[in-house]
Amino acid sequence: MTHVLVLNGPNLGTLGTREPEIYGSETLDDLRALLEADAAGLGATVEVRQTDHEGELLGWLHAAAREKTPVALNAGAWTHYSIAVHDAVQYVTSSGVPLIEVHISNPHARETFRHTSVITAVATGVIAGFGFDSYRLALAQLTRTGQ
Amino acid sequence: MTHVLVLNGPNLGTLGTREPEIYGSETLDDLRALLEADAAGLGATVEVRQTDHEGELLGWLHAAAREKTPVALNAGAWTHYSIAVHDAVQYVTSSGVPLIEVHISNPHARETFRHTSVITAVATGVIAGFGFDSYRLALAQLTRTGQ
Amino acid sequence: MTHVLVLNGPNLGTLGTREPEIYGSETLDDLRALLEADAAGLGATVEVRQTDHEGELLGWLHAAAREKTPVALNAGAWTHYSIAVHDAVQYVTSSGVPLIEVHISNPHARETFRHTSVITAVATGVIAGFGFDSYRLALAQLTRTGQ
Amino acid sequence: MTHVLVLNGPNLGTLGTREPEIYGSETLDDLRALLEADAAGLGATVEVRQTDHEGELLGWLHAAAREKTPVALNAGAWTHYSIAVHDAVQYVTSSGVPLIEVHISNPHARETFRHTSVITAVATGVIAGFGFDSYRLALAQLTRTGQ
Amino acid sequence: MTHVLVLNGPNLGTLGTREPEIYGSETLDDLRALLEADAAGLGATVEVRQTDHEGELLGWLHAAAREKTPVALNAGAWTHYSIAVHDAVQYVTSSGVPLIEVHISNPHARETFRHTSVITAVATGVIAGFGFDSYRLALAQLTRTGQ
Amino acid sequence: MTHVLVLNGPNLGTLGTREPEIYGSETLDDLRALLEADAAGLGATVEVRQTDHEGELLGWLHAAAREKTPVALNAGAWTHYSIAVHDAVQYVTSSGVPLIEVHISNPHARETFRHTSVITAVATGVIAGFGFDSYRLALAQLTRTGQ
Amino acid sequence: MTHVLVLNGPNLGTLGTREPEIYGSETLDDLRALLEADAAGLGATVEVRQTDHEGELLGWLHAAAREKTPVALNAGAWTHYSIAVHDAVQYVTSSGVPLIEVHISNPHARETFRHTSVITAVATGVIAGFGFDSYRLALAQLTRTGQ
Amino acid sequence: MTHVLVLNGPNLGTLGTREPEIYGSETLDDLRALLEADAAGLGATVEVRQTDHEGELLGWLHAAAREKTPVALNAGAWTHYSIAVHDAVQYVTSSGVPLIEVHISNPHARETFRHTSVITAVATGVIAGFGFDSYRLALAQLTRTGQ
Amino acid sequence: MTHVLVLNGPNLGTLGTREPEIYGSETLDDLRALLEADAAGLGATVEVRQTDHEGELLGWLHAAAREKTPVALNAGAWTHYSIAVHDAVQYVTSSGVPLIEVHISNPHARETFRHTSVITAVATGVIAGFGFDSYRLALAQLTRTGQ
Amino acid sequence: MTHVLVLNGPNLGTLGTREPEIYGSETLDDLRALLEADAAGLGATVEVRQTDHEGELLGWLHAAAREKTPVALNAGAWTHYSIAVHDAVQYVTSSGVPLIEVHISNPHARETFRHTSVITAVATGVIAGFGFDSYRLALAQLTRTGQ
Amino acid sequence: MTHVLVLNGPNLGTLGTREPEIYGSETLDDLRALLEADAAGLGATVEVRQTDHEGELLGWLHAAAREKTPVALNAGAWTHYSIAVHDAVQYVTSSGVPLIEVHISNPHARETFRHTSVITAVATGVIAGFGFDSYRLALAQLTRTGQ
Amino acid sequence: MTHVLVLNGPNLGTLGTREPEIYGSETLDDLRALLEADAAGLGATVEVRQTDHEGELLGWLHAAAREKTPVALNAGAWTHYSIAVHDAVQYVTSSGVPLIEVHISNPHARETFRHTSVITAVATGVIAGFGFDSYRLALAQLTRTGQ
Repeated sequence: MTHVLVLNGPNLGTLGTREPEIYGSETLDDLRALLEADAAGLGATVEVRQTDHEGELLGWLHAAAREKTPVALNAGAWTHYSIAVHDAVQYVTSSGVPLIEVHISNPHARETFRHTSVITAVATGVIAGFGFDSYRLALAQLTRTGQ
Repeated sequence: MTHVLVLNGPNLGTLGTREPEIYGSETLDDLRALLEADAAGLGATVEVRQTDHEGELLGWLHAAAREKTPVALNAGAWTHYSIAVHDAVQYVTSSGVPLIEVHISNPHARETFRHTSVITAVATGVIAGFGFDSYRLALAQLTRTGQ
Repeated sequence: MTHVLVLNGPNLGTLGTREPEIYGSETLDDLRALLEADAAGLGATVEVRQTDHEGELLGWLHAAAREKTPVALNAGAWTHYSIAVHDAVQYVTSSGVPLIEVHISNPHARETFRHTSVITAVATGVIAGFGFDSYRLALAQLTRTGQ
Repeated sequence: MTHVLVLNGPNLGTLGTREPEIYGSETLDDLRALLEADAAGLGATVEVRQTDHEGELLGWLHAAAREKTPVALNAGAWTHYSIAVHDAVQYVTSSGVPLIEVHISNPHARETFRHTSVITAVATGVIAGFGFDSYRLALAQLTRTGQ
Repeated sequence: MTHVLVLNGPNLGTLGTREPEIYGSETLDDLRALLEADAAGLGATVEVRQTDHEGELLGWLHAAAREKTPVALNAGAWTHYSIAVHDAVQYVTSSGVPLIEVHISNPHARETFRHTSVITAVATGVIAGFGFDSYRLALAQLTRTGQ
Repeated sequence: MTHVLVLNGPNLGTLGTREPEIYGSETLDDLRALLEADAAGLGATVEVRQTDHEGELLGWLHAAAREKTPVALNAGAWTHYSIAVHDAVQYVTSSGVPLIEVHISNPHARETFRHTSVITAVATGVIAGFGFDSYRLALAQLTRTGQ
Repeated sequence: MTHVLVLNGPNLGTLGTREPEIYGSETLDDLRALLEADAAGLGATVEVRQTDHEGELLGWLHAAAREKTPVALNAGAWTHYSIAVHDAVQYVTSSGVPLIEVHISNPHARETFRHTSVITAVATGVIAGFGFDSYRLALAQLTRTGQ
Repeated sequence: MTHVLVLNGPNLGTLGTREPEIYGSETLDDLRALLEADAAGLGATVEVRQTDHEGELLGWLHAAAREKTPVALNAGAWTHYSIAVHDAVQYVTSSGVPLIEVHISNPHARETFRHTSVITAVATGVIAGFGFDSYRLALAQLTRTGQ
Repeated sequence: MTHVLVLNGPNLGTLGTREPEIYGSETLDDLRALLEADAAGLGATVEVRQTDHEGELLGWLHAAAREKTPVALNAGAWTHYSIAVHDAVQYVTSSGVPLIEVHISNPHARETFRHTSVITAVATGVIAGFGFDSYRLALAQLTRTGQ
Repeated sequence: MTHVLVLNGPNLGTLGTREPEIYGSETLDDLRALLEADAAGLGATVEVRQTDHEGELLGWLHAAAREKTPVALNAGAWTHYSIAVHDAVQYVTSSGVPLIEVHISNPHARETFRHTSVITAVATGVIAGFGFDSYRLALAQLTRTGQ
Repeated sequence: MTHVLVLNGPNLGTLGTREPEIYGSETLDDLRALLEADAAGLGATVEVRQTDHEGELLGWLHAAAREKTPVALNAGAWTHYSIAVHDAVQYVTSSGVPLIEVHISNPHARETFRHTSVITAVATGVIAGFGFDSYRLALAQLTRTGQ
Repeated sequence: MTHVLVLNGPNLGTLGTREPEIYGSETLDDLRALLEADAAGLGATVEVRQTDHEGELLGWLHAAAREKTPVALNAGAWTHYSIAVHDAVQYVTSSGVPLIEVHISNPHARETFRHTSVITAVATGVIAGFGFDSYRLALAQLTRTGQ
């Protein structure tokens, strides 16, 4: 049974109240419920975490690399500048573990500084622009078995 | 019943023989079969087209905008410089029709000139890096109904 | 009697439905009627064409150079990147035939990538920002006789 | 009866002697006569002014904004760097008064530093490259009535 | 009675000993005493905090947004690169809560990398260059009542 | 008794009518009255001037340097390109006279070309984004006595 | 017997009349005759084609890759921006088929935008600046046998 | 007896498993043992620490500045963007305490974003490219006495 | 008898008090006396002027072009951005009148923004870095007769 | 009888041992023998030289210009930065003597700094990417007589 | 017994008199004596050379590559632009011979143009900022035997 | 009696034949004669040298620094890239010896790559654009005595 980690970076604990016209009005708990329901349907389990501390995210990624746990990662603002997160993501994927970069909004339709991702080049792939459905597509892909 | 257009740009007719280490060894016909099977399972229909002529792609996008047909678009090399395709994509999405930018490979893990997309900012969203599964995820999303 | 070619590039066949807040709600046929009326008043004839195929536009420009037919050119998105169109425009004007670059909207008031024109430097002049009147001013200028 | 202001910036008082191969050998007085004749034919009046003092041009533009007088502006070298003129032009057009940016020559066919205009984005439109006819086209457009 | 948060970012705990020729020889406690005295005079209260942990600052800003507490923020080095702080600041001000960017020194008179602020665009305003008085001016402004 | 000069650059004479959504609907006379009232309360005097002529501003700054009069300067558009004003500001502050750069709006929240200030590096400090209160804070700081 | 394809891109059908001071006064037919004579002397055959349609060139390159036909390519203006042509050229050479980039003139002695080639990096080699002799050298090299 | 701090930044706790072709297969504990042996031979003591939390590293550096403890710093990914670490390093060296920037690999032989160090300019010196020997050289230098 | 104009731009009226470590402690009157003495020795006359008004300098240059008076020009800060002055200088030199760009200090040894001159390319030559002697060398050269 | 100089720049004396996967395993003597054989067949003579001293190459080029000797030049690393070599090449070609820039490898398929050539713009033409055959093609072209 | 070459580039023969505040007051002979003493202690030999001729340095590096002699290289100013030296360094290290880039000062703490090294990417490692001790550390590393 | 060195860099030995439309048709010997005559009139001596070897020029500059001989330097193409020459020039001027950068032509009126000088910032001053008179002015200035 596949277990998937859904990791969220800075400010994503404010989902539902911060810029709802971009991120929607649903909260991180709503996301958790949605993904757990999806996971159940896919015969998988999912754990949704969030942190505002770069060091904590690094630790989660190190563990995923060691334990071979596939990851859906919304690194939030760190996407655009944290080379430390880049290195940890590279550690995951170069360990043979899939990691999908996920975004709720479409960063390329927003401010210029969001057009740069220091993570994409070392991620398995990227899914962006579909609201919470971005996570659901990532979950489906990470649990896909040869069909 | 949802009908989805899967449009492919230049050089994608060579799938299976061009750079198989990047694009895989399956052909456009294999993709067509795969997506038709998926579509059937989703209660939808799908049409897969490819062209090396920018003008032909523009015409397909104009028709999709007029006829409200959702689109999965792999614009190939035009992704990186064809503002004409940008304008046609914008015509589709500003008409309220979803259009997903799709890539087989992860362009950000390749040459620098593939890191620029003139399309993303006006697409609904982007899915890249999953081989033919990128198309399948797009198809699933375009046919998703409120669940 | 002066004959003027009015050539339009990609996506301009969608005039009237694509981004009407920018391009207005009148169609290419409306433009044709408007310019034919103007031409009649000016004792001239005008032919309005549109193509989504770069190669077709190149052919039209080659013919204009050979046949000494003055041109009003709205190259649409190609304005911003098609060096092939640049070369054909240069062929026209270096043959002693006037060619006016025309834009319906004011490209400098839009996205940054529309601020670059690879055509202006080899055009006779540029008229932009007056809606369909941009074409009318170009027609008036191309048919102007020493007064 | 429409009244149009034709405002000219620095060094344009030297028309006729400065770089005649670019600007022609006619003087500002010749331009004035030409435009007054045109205006008469159009049932309008026109006033042609020139200044080498940025502050004086700003004052003229402030008055045009307040008095709703349409403007044809050849800002000369200030076109390329005077954000003060940009702000005054914006004051005019955001007051609902049309202002056309005019150039005798085609700046994009000259030195690189003339390819940047800090004015175009806030002007109603631009007409460049037709010698004194650039002014005449602007005058025609500013006095155009719905026909 | 207005309550104001004065938040300080990395290395600002070393005030008084780090580069005293730039930051002065007074400490964070001196600043606290000074601002508390000012606040008393203004009929307000003030709380001065400092952290070297980006995640902790994000949490403080999230709380300020939720609780509508006005903020004076000296983000220190994060000013120049932390998009995570940018997003949290935007959360505060887009919640209708004033947040003033404060700097002890004048960053534009120092190294080039200090000329970029990723925060200013989403702050209410900026006050820089007045030593501890920068904080005092911010406090005065945040507690100003209509006079 | 401290005397403070409040100097305003180009287009600021149009306060109240130019872009009121940015600059407010109050005029330069309103500002003058506001600051004179503040000055009276602070036991100081203030003189508010405005000019559209760069040369006139330079002269005022030269006099301030010679006469040791503190200055609050809103250089308007010149802020972004006038190195002549930079040099005059440097003359003031290197003469030991404080000069505060003031802005009504927050330039970093506006067009990119307003993100560059050629003045900040040589000003004593900068206060921006508080409407007319920016001037009031500058006045308070320039008249502050050791308390 | 070696068969060589000589492919020409946009505007090259105008050889002999377009900018003869750069491209000479001989036509594409003159080139064809010259190369056929050379080929005969080399015991080879040659086919000279030209197109203004990017899609047509892509098709020719795809066929060359499949059929292992060596190519001399003068991509004209597409040299400078068509990543689609880049990808097709890469398909040819990564299939083990030699492809030589050819130019009549020396692009680096012309406008700056001609200094960039998106093709060179994936071509076997480049020959430029020798008029029609550039093609002849390429033909000689493509038909060279170990001597 | 000299005491030396060897401080390591993000992801360096994964030494031995992350990208062993670059960083080698030895762990942080191996490094600790190696350096302690060296220190013993040099008549010095050494303490090796690692953290994924920027704030924790800042604290260590503040203490080193206060306590005058020489430092060998491998800031990992923070080297490339953390101006907060820059400021803390500057605090150390401007306090008269030597701090050597150390790298296991040669960053200039890797990705472009690793070519930028925001730390070097304020470090005493830099030693890079010698595997764990980089640390050993730094230790030798920091404990060198006049010989 | 040769008459030479020595024209000075903004802030140069403050010579002797503004940044004396760069510009020296002598005044514009000292310069005038020095040059008049030199001119007398050279059998020439010289007139030294200064203005803070760009428009006034333009007028002086226009007259010099018309009257064929050689010019030594220290354009001060305008050197770095005033394209209006560039155009007027070009008017002088393209009229066959020599104009020498003069600087008291060596701009390339100062701030980066002083490394750009928009004037040099159209001046006859440049002399910089010799204090008031820069003017004297220019005067000597402008009055040189074939020896 | 045509005499051709084949000049080689820095590090090319190491041919055969330096990076044989790029430059091949044949030596400069092998090249000399190959070209002498070719020259004999072409009824010409050839001299192959190499130097690591920029000054020596300059002298050879000066002599070629004076003596009208055609040149094939592989300037090695100097290709990318030696403006001194640029000037000497320009001296040759502006003296009416053909000079062909030659490269063994395809510089555009290598490091970015090899994509810049300061020589191409003033060379007669360029031949690159064919191993030692690049020299042979240049020799053939330099000895070509009207056929 | 290991033999080490210590090679110095342009202007380093002036050590002791050129910019002693940066390079110290000791001469190249002092360096030679210091390193010979160190080498003796390490059971090695060392040869210290200096040249102002790029070609001479290239020859030394070619010999080191052929003879497998480890090198400590202070390339002086060539570090920043000589691609010829880059190529020779690459020849050394790709021959399996260690070469350490050495600097007396810390180039990143000096002028911007010294922040670029065209050598580092192909050196074994870099040691900079320790005065003559930089050479001593390099010597120690080059003679290190497995301990 | 003042002795002045006039040092010339690469390709300047070809004066009189290389690009005479820029450099004139007089030779280095003509320059020598001219300057020796001038020197005699000034009660000074002058020595004119030229080299194509960077190392030789460095040696001359080192000697000038040691022997306190003033220098007029036309570094030719090295002006634009030789940081080695920069360092030697800095050695001269920081030794208190005047060194004037001289150019025959006006580099800013030529190719873009000639607009950069790596020497100016450390020269005493620059004189450019006056043909051989540039040297004469430099000689006059270097031999000027307080008058």
